[in-house]
Amino acid sequence: MFAPLQNDSFLRACLRQPTEHTPIWLMRQAGRYLPEYRATRDKAGSFMGLATNTDYATEVTLQPLERFPLDAAILFSDILTVPDAMGLGLSFQQGEGPKFAKVVREEAAVAALEVPDMDKLRYVFDAVTSIRRALNGRVPLIGFSGSPWTLACYMVEGGGSDDYRLVKSLMYSRPDLMHRILDVNARAVAAYLNTQIEAGAQAVMVFDSWGGVLADGAFQQFSLAYSRQVLAAVKTEHEGQRIPRILFTKGGGLWLDEIADAGADVVGLDWTVNLGQARARVGDRVALQGNLDPNVLFAPPDAVRAQARAVLDSFGAPLAGSGHVFNLGHGISQFTPPEHVAALVDEVHSHSRRLRGLP
Amino acid sequence: MFAPLQNDSFLRACLRQPTEHTPIWLMRQAGRYLPEYRATRDKAGSFMGLATNTDYATEVTLQPLERFPLDAAILFSDILTVPDAMGLGLSFQQGEGPKFAKVVREEAAVAALEVPDMDKLRYVFDAVTSIRRALNGRVPLIGFSGSPWTLACYMVEGGGSDDYRLVKSLMYSRPDLMHRILDVNARAVAAYLNTQIEAGAQAVMVFDSWGGVLADGAFQQFSLAYSRQVLAAVKTEHEGQRIPRILFTKGGGLWLDEIADAGADVVGLDWTVNLGQARARVGDRVALQGNLDPNVLFAPPDAVRAQARAVLDSFGAPLAGSGHVFNLGHGISQFTPPEHVAALVDEVHSHSRRLRGLP
Repeated sequence: MFAPLQNDSFLRACLRQPTEHTPIWLMRQAGRYLPEYRATRDKAGSFMGLATNTDYATEVTLQPLERFPLDAAILFSDILTVPDAMGLGLSFQQGEGPKFAKVVREEAAVAALEVPDMDKLRYVFDAVTSIRRALNGRVPLIGFSGSPWTLACYMVEGGGSDDYRLVKSLMYSRPDLMHRILDVNARAVAAYLNTQIEAGAQAVMVFDSWGGVLADGAFQQFSLAYSRQVLAAVKTEHEGQRIPRILFTKGGGLWLDEIADAGADVVGLDWTVNLGQARARVGDRVALQGNLDPNVLFAPPDAVRAQARAVLDSFGAPLAGSGHVFNLGHGISQFTPPEHVAALVDEVHSHSRRLRGLP
Repeated sequence: MFAPLQNDSFLRACLRQPTEHTPIWLMRQAGRYLPEYRATRDKAGSFMGLATNTDYATEVTLQPLERFPLDAAILFSDILTVPDAMGLGLSFQQGEGPKFAKVVREEAAVAALEVPDMDKLRYVFDAVTSIRRALNGRVPLIGFSGSPWTLACYMVEGGGSDDYRLVKSLMYSRPDLMHRILDVNARAVAAYLNTQIEAGAQAVMVFDSWGGVLADGAFQQFSLAYSRQVLAAVKTEHEGQRIPRILFTKGGGLWLDEIADAGADVVGLDWTVNLGQARARVGDRVALQGNLDPNVLFAPPDAVRAQARAVLDSFGAPLAGSGHVFNLGHGISQFTPPEHVAALVDEVHSHSRRLRGLP
């Protein structure tokens, strides 16, 4: 059904198999820093207009690959599609981030939550299949979802938050309600990721963007336990191919040991973590993904290259059984000069070949 | 000159000496969650009107002590007084946080920076002396400053920031300019804290509120090195009394070992850190301060008490050579019900006495 894969370095690194270079992709690589993305978005009229239209979603997903020799594509979508499909009414105000028309803060709203019919997310699965076809085997396609906890943050707060006051108030006041939200989310996220895999996603990533705002103890109970539930229910194989599963907890460095045991093949790290120490801690349990500070990309290309080398050198020699996927520690900024991204991708490829003694 | 101290539990815990209970104070304990604070602020007209008036600053500093049996007072002021004294023009827009009229982003602005004449900060030192007198020996008075890095964030960004794009751009593009800003800040902060000590502060705290946004490697170079420079220059004793020095790096849990060696007597921790593990890592090098999530205070009093016990139990038995100062992991929210604070303070005192086998 799909063309054979030409560049499998990303999948191999996820599974801790040898590669000739360290593969790189960038969170939010199809995004506003690219003028061609802004042009397509203008045609689509809005962010959700872009995400829900198969042709536009395919077009923007492939745009960064035309510019840079990235080693993976990631579905163009949003982490909040699942609560939208639950009927909460997602929208994006210009310059303000996501908003939900309905919030989930009280007993009745929590009781009414259900795993949505996956047909309501058909636009996502259609985009996955369309992108996979358009990629034509160039690089693998990554599907993704927000984590149960991260989705719950938005569902309770109704949008972004500085202090997570409402969601944490609910969590500390009515842990029973919080656990019910998280269980529904976990079942929904698992179904969502499995349907993405069936539609053509060759790896999947769980974004626990807000796990790091939790207290020690609360993180394990309210975030990690439900990411683990998701990972236990997501396919590890599809049509004879291993499907690597990535778990990224922003601000989760202190809990690396526990995160590495949650069932993912790859753990994503932000820039606060020392990659060499992280590798020593996780050993052969998981591959690591990360972890350049996206703000490095505002420095001149030579400084970008030096920082890229520092990340690669910090991970250290690419030995059998280890695995490193180069990425940022957070989504790329809309203000990033694209030519700095070109320098980054080039340096990661060339320096990581040098580390392997290859020309 | 000042009345003898009646409750020295905070100072003793900072110096890892035995106490009959775990002392507690709260970051931003004199703040908007108290109606009496809001009344004084209305009289003063503005936040800076409050901070720069000796009588008002004294009044609000003592307000939380009238309500709760807290074990320390903290100077009412702002972390940004030092760059204001450098001539950058600090103001507070209603609901928007601090703003500087001038920013420091280019070579000429960096070259023009100087350690300010401490006379420009006379209002702070006058407040310290006035508060110390008004306390009349009830509890010790803590002075404080922003860390060199945290001050630099505001000086470069011109105010708060979501992504620290401008300050990190400067740091990665022109590290030489960044180091010059940080060196000036470190010398200014040291002079500022020493003058607070001479004016009557019995302990001092360095708030590295934004150290945790830095990448591993950059944190050590651009934040910790300059906090260390400050701590090396700040008095450890004044008029025969030991002056404990506290270093709090929000989001710094991954670097605890290095922070514990920076020269402070006490390391402040946020709620992401497991207090028992932290204690095992630092051993007898430093006391620890923290680390309840301030959002716990939105839960009902019984849940607040349970979470307070969990923090105390996590630190574990109060043995000789260890030291714990109970605090939040961040400033108290303006939406906090004051009666929940009363429950917290009571539980910390009573449970920590129980842990010592005292009635």
